[in-house]
Amino acid sequence: MAQMISTIRNGVDTQQLFATIDAIREQPALGAFTFRATNRWINGAHNRSRMQGFYGAGREDDSRREAFVVDSGEPTVLLGTDTGPSAIEYLLHAVVACLTTTIAYCAAARKIRLTEIESTIEADMDVRGCFGVDDDVRNGTSQIRVTVRVAGDASADRLRTLVERAQERSAVLDMITNGVALTVESVTE
Amino acid sequence: MAQMISTIRNGVDTQQLFATIDAIREQPALGAFTFRATNRWINGAHNRSRMQGFYGAGREDDSRREAFVVDSGEPTVLLGTDTGPSAIEYLLHAVVACLTTTIAYCAAARKIRLTEIESTIEADMDVRGCFGVDDDVRNGTSQIRVTVRVAGDASADRLRTLVERAQERSAVLDMITNGVALTVESVTE
Repeated sequence: MAQMISTIRNGVDTQQLFATIDAIREQPALGAFTFRATNRWINGAHNRSRMQGFYGAGREDDSRREAFVVDSGEPTVLLGTDTGPSAIEYLLHAVVACLTTTIAYCAAARKIRLTEIESTIEADMDVRGCFGVDDDVRNGTSQIRVTVRVAGDASADRLRTLVERAQERSAVLDMITNGVALTVESVTE
Repeated sequence: MAQMISTIRNGVDTQQLFATIDAIREQPALGAFTFRATNRWINGAHNRSRMQGFYGAGREDDSRREAFVVDSGEPTVLLGTDTGPSAIEYLLHAVVACLTTTIAYCAAARKIRLTEIESTIEADMDVRGCFGVDDDVRNGTSQIRVTVRVAGDASADRLRTLVERAQERSAVLDMITNGVALTVESVTE
């Protein structure tokens, strides 16, 4: 009987992972992606986004049969009716989601089997900025703190190095710490 | 009979809005907020965040009876199983959600009744960065483009000015364009 060797580690197909890396090394154009979302205002602080198609690996990806739909809101104290997490909370989720996935993928590549990744994230923000009360206060958060607990079949040192490597490679951490050029075009006809 | 004058505009209670602005102008400490999320890895690119409590307006806010729960994932081409939007897509949602809410609130304050806010957002990203294929390529997106369509009972000029003002006041737009200090602490015992 042939021996079955699983290439899945941490839920990541490492054979596919290394094949993907080889493919974009050989054909850099395959690395170009464009991600998208559309958003529609419902009422007050309630609005809804849809994400489905994207461009990547040299073609328009139509593998998702349905759009993902997410709702935003604000709590009462910020004049909403709690129709969903606030935009800031979604941003915090994006940061820890990206860090967690990057840790799982990096560990898979490094042959570390993980049993746990748990994180907490918090951000301080003085809302006098975005409410226009004090122009010397910035609109957004002044500081984001993340604590991540990782467990698996590697030494504490190796796990710490893994988290550091993931932090260096996370797309969202790069964007939120270094900033991104952003343009807004308004259509009013 | 007493005449009822509604203070609700665009789903925003303008009386509460102006009272909130007055309150944080008089007591700046009320403007200090701390937002939070916790995230747990499930498998592969699948992880889940919860957002419930936060600190704000001088106290720990416990008005939300249940946590909001959101799931992340990656599409097949990025080694996931589509268990939810990707972290990048959540980030794009956070940007347009914040811009939309800020437009609705600013319009309410300026006595503009809106009938529509619809936006599309897209971000280009070369995944050679986050896959570690080329150190000269950044991990995150190089550019984010937003198009927002706004309609309501104001001139096209006034609506365009409204969008510009919201862009200047959006918390998430500030964070994503100017960057935020971020610390990651790892716990490995």
